[in-house]
Amino acid sequence: MIAPRAPLVIGIDGGGTSCRVAIAKTNGVVIAGATGGSANIFSDPDGAIARIRKTIVSAGEDAGLTPDETFRLPAVLGLAGVNIGHDLERVGISLGLERAKIVTDAEIALEGALGSDDGIVAIIGTGSVYLRRLAGRIDSIGGWGFTLGDQSSGARLGRDCLEHTLLAHDGIIAAGNLSRSILEKFDYDPVAIVSFARSAQPGDFARFAGDLFRFAETADPLARLILNEAITYIESAVGALQTGRLPLVLLGGLASSYRPYLPIGLTQEIIEPKGSALDGALAMALKL
Amino acid sequence: MIAPRAPLVIGIDGGGTSCRVAIAKTNGVVIAGATGGSANIFSDPDGAIARIRKTIVSAGEDAGLTPDETFRLPAVLGLAGVNIGHDLERVGISLGLERAKIVTDAEIALEGALGSDDGIVAIIGTGSVYLRRLAGRIDSIGGWGFTLGDQSSGARLGRDCLEHTLLAHDGIIAAGNLSRSILEKFDYDPVAIVSFARSAQPGDFARFAGDLFRFAETADPLARLILNEAITYIESAVGALQTGRLPLVLLGGLASSYRPYLPIGLTQEIIEPKGSALDGALAMALKL
Repeated sequence: MIAPRAPLVIGIDGGGTSCRVAIAKTNGVVIAGATGGSANIFSDPDGAIARIRKTIVSAGEDAGLTPDETFRLPAVLGLAGVNIGHDLERVGISLGLERAKIVTDAEIALEGALGSDDGIVAIIGTGSVYLRRLAGRIDSIGGWGFTLGDQSSGARLGRDCLEHTLLAHDGIIAAGNLSRSILEKFDYDPVAIVSFARSAQPGDFARFAGDLFRFAETADPLARLILNEAITYIESAVGALQTGRLPLVLLGGLASSYRPYLPIGLTQEIIEPKGSALDGALAMALKL
Repeated sequence: MIAPRAPLVIGIDGGGTSCRVAIAKTNGVVIAGATGGSANIFSDPDGAIARIRKTIVSAGEDAGLTPDETFRLPAVLGLAGVNIGHDLERVGISLGLERAKIVTDAEIALEGALGSDDGIVAIIGTGSVYLRRLAGRIDSIGGWGFTLGDQSSGARLGRDCLEHTLLAHDGIIAAGNLSRSILEKFDYDPVAIVSFARSAQPGDFARFAGDLFRFAETADPLARLILNEAITYIESAVGALQTGRLPLVLLGGLASSYRPYLPIGLTQEIIEPKGSALDGALAMALKL
């Protein structure tokens, strides 16, 4: 017989680069946790399920629980790559979690950043998505992925850098330090850029966003052109969600890079996040 | 013993949608031909090689030749999808052609369109590429493929339509008849658009270029916006190649759709093509 234990909950941040699991008491105090590999259910469904399961088991062991006990706890899982028509119930069953609520990674990020307040969250990393919570309802803009959306994201910025480098090579636009620097990385061979793009994933394109911000600092005209277009999109997306004076939280790998370039109208509204996405998952699990 | 025959040459237009082969006497008179399936060596190398071989054999039979005799004739093959760093010599060996010159499909199109004259050829179909022949030298702009290039192509126009439909759905830009018509095709479900794009090939995106031109006729603002950006690119590309009064030939599936929208500066230079890409391949084979 297993002795009765204090009630516990699990929060899971199933992100594209890593999976983080925390176990907390019902007063919110975290007692155990674990970190595992990528949880992107879109790019590798079976691998992601296996890695998430393994990380949950590790966190349970850290709390002195058997796997059976762990998988019976109330859980909230925020998953990368699930906003696009994924069957969330099936994911819960595959994971073996008995009492799980599965949401997007953006939703737990919003919960972590805003707590229970209303506000807007702009998540700008390899991809991009904009969420608003207002009077209990969550609306979102973007998050449609690399091919047709994710404007302002690292992947799109990087792709734009490569496209403009080829335009400069063709003499359609003026070459500058950014385009010359990228062409140099490919040994001055435009065919090498095209070959790279053929198999590149969004994260591969996003690596060039660093070059963009570096050259934008030196007022390179092409870098500024690409950056300004992205900032116009950020303004439009936040503007479409803004109803009055909702606070704005910037999250994601490019948040700090963008911040110095954002117009005062946006920066006035910016507040720091209250907590992480994992905090958000735990907070949601406590409400189950 | 096979009786000696009149000297013959083969021209092969290895296009992305079909492969066309013609056999001509050295005076240029075509005596036989055959048509087969897609010859895009990039998307399906083995299948393309097999289809081209089969079409060459058929054309040979049509001329009363054995396969051995056919594959020994001087041949010029213009291949789709080979401009991006492909090993052309290996393609010739795989095909079993003993005396073959292999060039891009764009080069035989230029030869067919201009004959031996100088001039500019804009090839705008699913992809796009711009070539200039001047004093025996051929230069090109574009043709870098869907992900990073092919501005003004059907695939890019179609992709832009879908991207802007999602922007309209998100309230970032105003919805109009074009975006509403596309959303309707996907049962008003933006997730269905994203799912389509995940597996869509350039040719699949290009199908939406028809919608674009249809709505551009009715002065739909979004259709005109996307179209104007493409036309600006066409002007820039032709402008970068234009040295004075070189004639311009418009080729490809979208040539006639674009023509009414091109500025007078461009249309003044337009001449009709002298012949087809297959004519070009034959003409080049005759020079071997």
